Amino acid sequence: MTYCLGMLVRDGLVMISDTRTNAGMDNVSVYRKLHVFETPGERTIAVATSGNLSMTQTALSFAGEGMTNPDTGQIERLQTAPSLIKAAELIGHAVRKVRADLPTSLKEYGVSTEVGFLIGGRVGDEPIRLFLVYSAGNFIECEPDTPFLQIGEIKYGKPILDRVLERDTAIPDALKLGLLSMDATLRSNVAVGLPMDLLVLREGAPAPATQTRIEEDDPYFSQLGRAWHAALTETYRLLPRPPYV
Amino acid sequence: MTYCLGMLVRDGLVMISDTRTNAGMDNVSVYRKLHVFETPGERTIAVATSGNLSMTQTALSFAGEGMTNPDTGQIERLQTAPSLIKAAELIGHAVRKVRADLPTSLKEYGVSTEVGFLIGGRVGDEPIRLFLVYSAGNFIECEPDTPFLQIGEIKYGKPILDRVLERDTAIPDALKLGLLSMDATLRSNVAVGLPMDLLVLREGAPAPATQTRIEEDDPYFSQLGRAWHAALTETYRLLPRPPYV
Repeated sequence: MTYCLGMLVRDGLVMISDTRTNAGMDNVSVYRKLHVFETPGERTIAVATSGNLSMTQTALSFAGEGMTNPDTGQIERLQTAPSLIKAAELIGHAVRKVRADLPTSLKEYGVSTEVGFLIGGRVGDEPIRLFLVYSAGNFIECEPDTPFLQIGEIKYGKPILDRVLERDTAIPDALKLGLLSMDATLRSNVAVGLPMDLLVLREGAPAPATQTRIEEDDPYFSQLGRAWHAALTETYRLLPRPPYV
Repeated sequence: MTYCLGMLVRDGLVMISDTRTNAGMDNVSVYRKLHVFETPGERTIAVATSGNLSMTQTALSFAGEGMTNPDTGQIERLQTAPSLIKAAELIGHAVRKVRADLPTSLKEYGVSTEVGFLIGGRVGDEPIRLFLVYSAGNFIECEPDTPFLQIGEIKYGKPILDRVLERDTAIPDALKLGLLSMDATLRSNVAVGLPMDLLVLREGAPAPATQTRIEEDDPYFSQLGRAWHAALTETYRLLPRPPYV
C-alpha cells in the first residue's frame, strides 16, 4: 500500500509520500515513491507513485529515458517535456506502454495492475500545476475548489483535508495539514509507513524545490502527532453529550 | 453505500447506522438498515446491514421467519435463538442460503454480492455481545482491545475511533464519538446519508434498548458537527508550523 498527497495552494505545491511497499504482509520494504526531475531555474517535475511497483518503476523509466512519439517520430522525455501537462501525458503514454507490454497472464496470478501517479511542478515560467494519472493513462488536473489530489490509501487522511485545506492556505499550514493527514493514515493502516518524503515548490521563486525525508525519530513529526492526538481527545471531551440517552 | 458502527463498552452497546441505499448514483433511497428484534425483559437483538440490499433483506427475512436446522430438523429464528452467538450463526446460515439460492449469473450483471452484518445485543442474562458476519457467513466477535466493529464505508470514520474509543469509555461519550465518526463519513462520501438510526443497550438494565432516529434537522447532531469542525480548525492552527520549509 501507499499514501501520496499533492496540495496545490496559491503560494505553491506541497507533495508528501510514504515509502512502504509490500508484496503481501510478509514482504515489506522501503522504496522511494517521490521522484524529482529537476533542472534548476528551468524545471521541477515531481512524480509520486502508487500501486504495482513493477509497473510504476517501468513506466517511470520509460518516461525518464524517453519514448518515441508515433506522430512526430521524436523522442520525448520528462527532462525535456515543454510543459507540465505534456509531462502528465508522457506518464500516461508510459503507463499504457507498460500495460501493452504486459503478459495477459498477470491477472491469472492475482496481481493487481492498478497504478496511480501524481505529477506536480512547473516547466519554465508556467504556473505550478498538479495532475493525477490513472491506471488507464488518462488524467485529471487539480483545481482550486478542491486543492489536493491523493493516490493509494486515500480515505483515512481525507476528512481533515476536506475540512480545512483551501486554495488560500499558506504553504507551512498546508504542509502541517498534509502531515496530519499522513499521521491519521499511518495510525490506521500498517501498509503505509515511515520514512516520508516531502517536497515544497514555491510559486514565483526561482529556487529549486525543498526536499526533506522524515525519518521515524523526526522530532517535529513525532511531537505533531502527539499534540494533535492530545488535542483531539481533549476537544471531544469538551463537546456536549448527546441528548438521546 | 452504507456506514454502520457497533461499539461495545463496559456499560453496554451503541449501534449507529445511516439509511442511504443506492443502486448507482442516479437511484438513491432511504432504507432502514438497523433492525431490532426485541422481547422486553428477554432479548434484544439488533442487526445492522451493509452491501447488496436484495441479499441482506432476504437473509434477514430467512433469519426472522425461521430456517430449518438440518442437524436437528428444528426451525430456528432470531426471536427464539438461545444466545447471541446462535443469532450470529443463524444470520451466517441465512447468508449462505441466500448465496446458494442465487443464480450464478448475478456476477455477470456486474452486481456485487458482498454483504456485512453487525449483530449486537443479549439474550436472557448473558453479557451484551457484538458480532460481525461476513459475506461468506463466517463471523468475528468484538473484543475489549478494539471495542468496535464497522461495516460498509469504514475508513473515513475509523481514525477518531482508533484514537479515542476504549472499553472504559462511558456510553454517552461512545455515542458522541460514534456520531463524530459518522459526521466524518457523511462529509467525505455522499453515498452515506441521513437520517441515522441509533440504538443503546445498557449492561445490567432490564429496560428495553433506547432507539432514536436522527433526521437532517436534528439540533444536537448539527451543532456537534459544527462545533467539532470549528474546534479541529482552531486546533490545527495552534499547532506549531513545520521546520522543513
